[in-house]
Amino acid sequence: MPKIVDHEERRNAIAAAAARIIAERGIDDVPMVAIAEAAGVTTGAVTHYFQDKDEVILAALRWADGAMQARAARAFEKHDDVVSIILAALPTNEESRIEWLVWAVFADRATRTPELHAEHRARSHQWQELAKRVLGEMREQGALDTRINIDLEAKLAVALIDGLGYHASTDPESWSEEEQRAILRQYVDRLRKS
Amino acid sequence: MPKIVDHEERRNAIAAAAARIIAERGIDDVPMVAIAEAAGVTTGAVTHYFQDKDEVILAALRWADGAMQARAARAFEKHDDVVSIILAALPTNEESRIEWLVWAVFADRATRTPELHAEHRARSHQWQELAKRVLGEMREQGALDTRINIDLEAKLAVALIDGLGYHASTDPESWSEEEQRAILRQYVDRLRKS
Repeated sequence: MPKIVDHEERRNAIAAAAARIIAERGIDDVPMVAIAEAAGVTTGAVTHYFQDKDEVILAALRWADGAMQARAARAFEKHDDVVSIILAALPTNEESRIEWLVWAVFADRATRTPELHAEHRARSHQWQELAKRVLGEMREQGALDTRINIDLEAKLAVALIDGLGYHASTDPESWSEEEQRAILRQYVDRLRKS
Repeated sequence: MPKIVDHEERRNAIAAAAARIIAERGIDDVPMVAIAEAAGVTTGAVTHYFQDKDEVILAALRWADGAMQARAARAFEKHDDVVSIILAALPTNEESRIEWLVWAVFADRATRTPELHAEHRARSHQWQELAKRVLGEMREQGALDTRINIDLEAKLAVALIDGLGYHASTDPESWSEEEQRAILRQYVDRLRKS
């Protein structure tokens, strides 16, 4: 019987492979056997870990969102500037682009599946909380325009970031990393106390 | 033989019915027969107008985007304030929510289909041009902060609006019309000359 760590590792490897193939082909064109092939395991192994497609897309979303959160958190802990923290989560290369495409597929499915909807809302909420923390730190440092309502600004920031991520993942040529950075710079500079 | 105006009207009615059912059930769970039923026509009529699903989703997107553009343009021509112009395009009721959900399904499919990708890019570009026009008018009236780069700001505005539309269409309870308005107000007020 495999150890728990192996179980988790294997499940995670399948989720990562599923994320890649879902981003590439869309969820509905992805039979379990294709996920198994991409992960280098048997179809039986996939169905052992995941009962149905909703479980697969949920695991893929958790994998993708986890990767984004980890990069943003690392940048936050390194005391990077705010623009770099946000950019760490955005689609600036093929790997992060896959994460955003998985988010989009998940979000669409979440409008029709209550359990996925709850997860979608919880994760969006986590990102709003991170935005509040960053804005709160700016306020403590006296760097934030005093007229700014932080709760509202956190939602504005998350909407802007998600809009950037949507465009940069669906049309990377029109939304380069440099341009994403310049847009964020223009946004963040305006938050500062003048 | 039907007149051209009937042909266009009928095609448009099928596109509108398709948009509704795609928003509700997702594109892959929508056979041609379901679209025909929703539109109140025969399956033969649907396949007469649309060769495949890509043509259906393209027509549905054009219908949805056309409705959004028409509402925003009407608000613009009525010289509504900027916040109301943007809000006219956003998902604030069931009808506009459907339009945004169709956009999301289309955007996902566009990452895998070159013709849809070209249409997606062209329509995003149209929205950026509208944002440039609004920002340009603000500048002419001396109302825009002089430090703002209009090209960059137009993309920022489109990303923010698309992010708002994404959240408000997938989770309407967490993003009410009032809140969308308050977020836009906070954004637009900061664009003004201080």
